Parts: sequence; structure tokens; C-alpha cells
Amino acid sequence: MKLNFKIVKSNIFFKGKVFDLKVDEIQYDSGNKGIREVALHNGGAVVLPITDDGKIIFVKQYRYPLDKFIFELPAGKLETNEDPLVCATRELKEEVGCSAKQIEKLGRICTTPGFCTEILHIYKATGLTFGDTAREEGEYGMEIFYFTVEEVKKMIRNGEIYDAKSICGINYLLLKS
Amino acid sequence: MKLNFKIVKSNIFFKGKVFDLKVDEIQYDSGNKGIREVALHNGGAVVLPITDDGKIIFVKQYRYPLDKFIFELPAGKLETNEDPLVCATRELKEEVGCSAKQIEKLGRICTTPGFCTEILHIYKATGLTFGDTAREEGEYGMEIFYFTVEEVKKMIRNGEIYDAKSICGINYLLLKS
Repeated sequence: MKLNFKIVKSNIFFKGKVFDLKVDEIQYDSGNKGIREVALHNGGAVVLPITDDGKIIFVKQYRYPLDKFIFELPAGKLETNEDPLVCATRELKEEVGCSAKQIEKLGRICTTPGFCTEILHIYKATGLTFGDTAREEGEYGMEIFYFTVEEVKKMIRNGEIYDAKSICGINYLLLKS
Repeated sequence: MKLNFKIVKSNIFFKGKVFDLKVDEIQYDSGNKGIREVALHNGGAVVLPITDDGKIIFVKQYRYPLDKFIFELPAGKLETNEDPLVCATRELKEEVGCSAKQIEKLGRICTTPGFCTEILHIYKATGLTFGDTAREEGEYGMEIFYFTVEEVKKMIRNGEIYDAKSICGINYLLLKS
């Protein structure tokens, strides 16, 4: 479909460690002008690790923007041009200390399509072996939890798990198994 | 749990229409410093409208950051201090032209807890009556679709629906019904 605007001006307003901020000026065919604020994000990878006895591994970690510890599937940001599978493998090792015999793509999501380019690639990891973690200083206090699928479903229902990528990961797992 | 850092400096770097950008400098107990980039977002409301014959209403709309038309549940940003239910009711009317006899909270999600404060409140809307839409100029080209739950599940599985809030909405619906 033909769009009803053109970009008049585009400006990288801020270059960050997690995202850059682009602010564009657009002009509609009507002559009206508008602003588009876009967080330019490399995207990331999410891992849904399943132990041999069927438990799903979550981490509980402090999230600065929310000022809260929340339950999440292990995840991390892509380096520029990084293969999401490489990122998933790294994050599983760093955050949980796990290597996986099998890593299988479950799907992808856009997290906030209204103002951010972020796409997250979600993987299922099985055949896990456990070793040391290698967490960053900013991941202080991260804890590991093992939940059955039924426990996870209950925790989503009662609001204990409310992280979007984690709910989507579980949803992909349930829809594809 | 006690945190391992303190905030040294906090700076609103940009004030936008959709979000503000805050850049904080933190110092760990170790003496190392770090930066936290936070998109300050009011949050929003998402509506999962179900017709009397059981179809779920999706919109397909252009998303500037992705430069794509994608399928999503109707949604919108909260005004400052707005009740999410009021926002949900408004967006359902503006985007789909619907009023709902019943609106019921399904749950909430954090979309990107690593860098953004956004919380989305998700509602199920039933008892729909249809009237005129009132879309903004930036919502040009928005189309309405009616899918059965089975069609939605298939579209998530095959990647046609990959919007996180919409997948979470469906997941809440399935887990709570």
C-alpha cells in the first residue's frame, strides 16, 4: 500500500549503548507535518531452556527501568550483525552457565513496533549441560529458577510472570509442541 | 535484595511525544561506573475484541520503525495518569469503531524491561456494537480483520502475527478461558 507521507528530515539525536534515538520529521500528503521518534535497537535473542526432566529455566533479575526484580527467560542484545543463534548460545552460557546440545528456533517477535525497531529471536534449548556462569556487573543478584510448564502457566495467569518476551516464548512452545 | 550500585547523575536527554529519554550514570560498589539509558513511556492499553460469533478483531497497520504493515490487536498509549480502561475503550472506538458492553482485564506485560518503562494493560472486550472509526492521520491505511482463535494460533505459528503484545493477549485469553 502507498504511504501518505514522506520523510522531510532525519536526525540521529543520541547514540547509546543499548539503542540510538532517531527523530524524523515527516510531511503528510495533506501538508501536515509529524514527528517520528524511533529507538534504533539491534534486536536480541531469547532462550527457553528445558532441562532433561522438563523444567523451564527462568532468571530473576533487576531491571533498572522498572526498579524491580522480574522473572524472565534468559536473553540478550545482538552485537551489530550478529547471528541471533550465536547470541542465544552466549546468553545461555553467561546467564545460566548452560551449554545446549540442541537449539531450535521457535519464532520471533517485535516488542514495541510503535517506537522501536527491536526484533527478538526466540529459541528452545535442550540437552543442557551445566557449568559456570559469566555474568556482567550489571547482572548482580540474578537468580536461576526451574519451573514446570504448568507452574509457568499459573505464574502468567496470576501475574507473577509478566515479561512479554517470556510469555511469547511459552506461547510459541505450547503452540508448536 | 540490596542493589550493588547508586545513581550518580540523572539527566532527561530528550522529551518526546511518545517517550522521553533519560540517561543515568551509576556507580557500582566496586567503584566502576555504568550508564543506564531509559525510554520513559507512559504505558498503554491493548484490547482483544471478540465478536458475538467468536472472531477476534485485529488491525493491520503501518509501523514506521519496522517500515512494515503488521497485524496487531488494537492498542494505544496512555495519556499522563490516564486509567488504562479509559484508554482501551478509546482505542477500540477510534481504531475499530467499536463500543463494548463488557471490558475485562486479562493481564499486563512489560514490553522491554531492559531499557523502557512501558507497561501494557490488556483487556478482553465483548458485547460489541459497531460504528464509525476516528483514526489519526498517522494511522492511514489501517485495515480491520476478523480471525477465529484457531486462525490466530496458526498465524502465530507461521510467523504472520509476531507482535509481542498481541501474542501475549492471545496467551492470556487461552490461559484464562
